[in-house]
Amino acid sequence: MTSTKKAAVPASRRERPAKQALSRQGIIAAALTILRDEGLEKVTMRRIAAALDTGAAALYVYLRDTEDLHAQILDALLGSVSAAAVKRRKGTWRERLKALLTSYSLVLFDHPEMARMAMSTQPSGPNYLSLVDTILGLLREGGVADREAAWGVDLLLLHATAIAAERSNRRASSRAAEEFSAMAAAISTVDAARYPNIARLGGELLSGKGPDRSEWALDVCLGGFLTTPRSTSEQE
Amino acid sequence: MTSTKKAAVPASRRERPAKQALSRQGIIAAALTILRDEGLEKVTMRRIAAALDTGAAALYVYLRDTEDLHAQILDALLGSVSAAAVKRRKGTWRERLKALLTSYSLVLFDHPEMARMAMSTQPSGPNYLSLVDTILGLLREGGVADREAAWGVDLLLLHATAIAAERSNRRASSRAAEEFSAMAAAISTVDAARYPNIARLGGELLSGKGPDRSEWALDVCLGGFLTTPRSTSEQE
Repeated sequence: MTSTKKAAVPASRRERPAKQALSRQGIIAAALTILRDEGLEKVTMRRIAAALDTGAAALYVYLRDTEDLHAQILDALLGSVSAAAVKRRKGTWRERLKALLTSYSLVLFDHPEMARMAMSTQPSGPNYLSLVDTILGLLREGGVADREAAWGVDLLLLHATAIAAERSNRRASSRAAEEFSAMAAAISTVDAARYPNIARLGGELLSGKGPDRSEWALDVCLGGFLTTPRSTSEQE
Repeated sequence: MTSTKKAAVPASRRERPAKQALSRQGIIAAALTILRDEGLEKVTMRRIAAALDTGAAALYVYLRDTEDLHAQILDALLGSVSAAAVKRRKGTWRERLKALLTSYSLVLFDHPEMARMAMSTQPSGPNYLSLVDTILGLLREGGVADREAAWGVDLLLLHATAIAAERSNRRASSRAAEEFSAMAAAISTVDAARYPNIARLGGELLSGKGPDRSEWALDVCLGGFLTTPRSTSEQE
């Protein structure tokens, strides 16, 4: 409990410039600055309170805990995705949906720690809802039925999040390049009697750049949504 | 460096029963026991060396480091998936592929820490290669062309791994139930003017159990593989 200590207002307070009134937006803005400059682990209530020249206790009016803070940071970052979606009005539904999901991925690529965090949290902030709503609207425009769209939106976001988290994890690992080499070596020297399909496909398994693979995966999903009705038995 | 300390052989050694010769299999077996009984964080070189009554330095003949150890544990766990695949010879290619991927998911569900680990590692052990080879064989049986199968196998495994990692993360979080409630509340009270698609779909967005959603996602992918050729431009 730091509140007791911090509650003691210094006598010289009136001599200092007036502090800005505390607001949720101001707190998130301070958090984003710390995230950018010092990394996610430094984004704590105490550190933000120091940046805003207040006590950590004052922040709890706006935020439940550190996890809530991180969720709100993620939602704030998604603001640029929503904004981009509004501006992007040209192209087919499929092109716009791809652009939207790419924009979501890029936000997570830019904030690797948030990508990992996004795998363990269920967002429900306004910008996340806006992203979900926009995806649903584009799926509808593309002729995807409501029941399939309702489940499909999760699949699209899980895929984009997982790609970003995987990339983030591998960047953080000193062994990623080594592991990829080991995989490539295992494939090229594989025992064809034991692994006939890997031997047959060979380098094709490692072919392609990330964005090309992601775009194909997205086309696979969108094609599948249009042609794969949900079974009715699941409702029994 | 603990090797200096541990290298001092106690004088009473000849009075104890003979130690089993150290082997990679023996090391992994000891690691799996510690994983089951004490969790992944206790699976260290030092702890395994103690269990095997040897020095940690002796293990480095078989394992590069702790990350290599964890990768080998994951591969050992995948042994049960390969074995299950061999036994399961009935059903269509699609049913067998679903059963195989479900078996993979269950291994990760049973070992939540390994599920998170699997998101950050590129496995290349014999049981992982066997899993990949079997998936490729089933896709071929189902008429999926080689180029699409080569990328598809990654998508299927990423999806199964991400589902398990997400589930594992949420289990580890004290706030998962709270977050789900917040999401459900956000959807049911959503501003229909701002989020018309979410308002229209409502509870449908949260409908369905995990296994039903996963099975549908798998059908989406398999259907997509069959109908979504990779573009040729990516090879330029």
